[in-house]
Amino acid sequence: MRYRIDLEYQGTRYHGWQGQENARTVQGELLRAARELFGAAVDVQGSGRTDAGVHAICQVAHLEAPRALPGARLVREINDLLPPDINLLAARRVDDRFHARHHATGRSYLYQISRRRTAFGKPFVWWVKDSLAIEPMRRAAAGLCGMHDFSSFTDKRVEKDTSTKVLLQEAVLAEAGELILVRLRGSHFLRKMVRRIVGCLAGLGRGEISEKDFAALLGAPSPYPARATAPPSGLFLEEVIYPGETFKRPLSPVLAIDGPRPEKGRP
Amino acid sequence: MRYRIDLEYQGTRYHGWQGQENARTVQGELLRAARELFGAAVDVQGSGRTDAGVHAICQVAHLEAPRALPGARLVREINDLLPPDINLLAARRVDDRFHARHHATGRSYLYQISRRRTAFGKPFVWWVKDSLAIEPMRRAAAGLCGMHDFSSFTDKRVEKDTSTKVLLQEAVLAEAGELILVRLRGSHFLRKMVRRIVGCLAGLGRGEISEKDFAALLGAPSPYPARATAPPSGLFLEEVIYPGETFKRPLSPVLAIDGPRPEKGRP
Repeated sequence: MRYRIDLEYQGTRYHGWQGQENARTVQGELLRAARELFGAAVDVQGSGRTDAGVHAICQVAHLEAPRALPGARLVREINDLLPPDINLLAARRVDDRFHARHHATGRSYLYQISRRRTAFGKPFVWWVKDSLAIEPMRRAAAGLCGMHDFSSFTDKRVEKDTSTKVLLQEAVLAEAGELILVRLRGSHFLRKMVRRIVGCLAGLGRGEISEKDFAALLGAPSPYPARATAPPSGLFLEEVIYPGETFKRPLSPVLAIDGPRPEKGRP
Repeated sequence: MRYRIDLEYQGTRYHGWQGQENARTVQGELLRAARELFGAAVDVQGSGRTDAGVHAICQVAHLEAPRALPGARLVREINDLLPPDINLLAARRVDDRFHARHHATGRSYLYQISRRRTAFGKPFVWWVKDSLAIEPMRRAAAGLCGMHDFSSFTDKRVEKDTSTKVLLQEAVLAEAGELILVRLRGSHFLRKMVRRIVGCLAGLGRGEISEKDFAALLGAPSPYPARATAPPSGLFLEEVIYPGETFKRPLSPVLAIDGPRPEKGRP
């Protein structure tokens, strides 16, 4: 019995998605919970890995179960066995040939930079204290749309089997109050690619590199993106797209962790 | 030099506000940061204690500093020395006679119950899985307005010096999506009073006690509120009110930790 499961997680406490011996991972927690529920080993495959500390508001996986259960009950029973920072949103029976990774045609990531320190926000943003020039960052982000060689933005030793040419359907930077949001949506992503792009955009915003330098990073090897890598806390896997699905999520903060602000400093 | 400081904190990692030997507290972190900044011991007094695990979106304290600093600089320099889950919002010079606790004329607390499991929400809510009857809860909450003896809702051994008669100016329960918000605003609060009231409201919503039982808790001793105590995670000190100030915060979730939801369970 194959199920498609949609789930969200806060990555802070995990060594990423992918199961590893001696490390707490999201896939590992799902495998444990499913084994406990079904009394037998169960296969769970995600649409792709997320790195240590990276969050997901909608990761997709398939789960091969030894017996049938209604989707809503599967969600409830697995959630009862999961830690509070991993949460199944939905489960439904799918064709046995459905493969969460092979069939995914796109992924969307959102990155949150915060220009304000808040007591509640740290795990979900990258705090950048320096003043950032937004317009050049916006232009540089938009320039990433289309098919480019992103080998500068990734670790080639790790990616030897994956094409470094990536088609980005959407690359946009927008302000939302004190947050700066960067969305990248594409066919596939290379390891740390989003965090290195965001790190370089911040470097541009701070004036460390010019717009010309930034554009030159596409295709030409440079040690700068690795040095500039943004922290995982600000990164969210937003959505995984499958054939026949359209992407229509509005570009807005994943988590409005600020809430209404108190009136400050009254005497 | 006396300053009024307004601050927010996530209480999860702290043993409450009040400084204690061998325990990490919010006041303790402030004292440490201020001592580091001024190179001398500094006095910091809060408007009142918050218990272990309880959050604040606007706690107020006064700080007696050995020398003058512009408020904005004080905020910035102390924040640089504080852990990321404590954040000064504002600081301003006040009259030396200003006392954060003695001069406060009111406090407002907000409690968040969540009827939905989410991967990001657990530290900021009380998850209640049972179905809750909202209307009786709303009526019972409203019935708490005015002056009442809340001795049933507190630990009398701890409160021997404080009057158990409390004037509540506002007692309201409202739904906000999957959240149930309870706001209690009053002259002063007894230890665990808000959490015991919320626990009893949930007991009423679940049908464990009747509206009549709930009303009878006012004034008459009962072991039920202590057993029903709601967890600290859902509780926020919202605001502290001083003479000449009016309270006008809208009743809305302190933290919109849910964000826009993914479209669920597509095939």
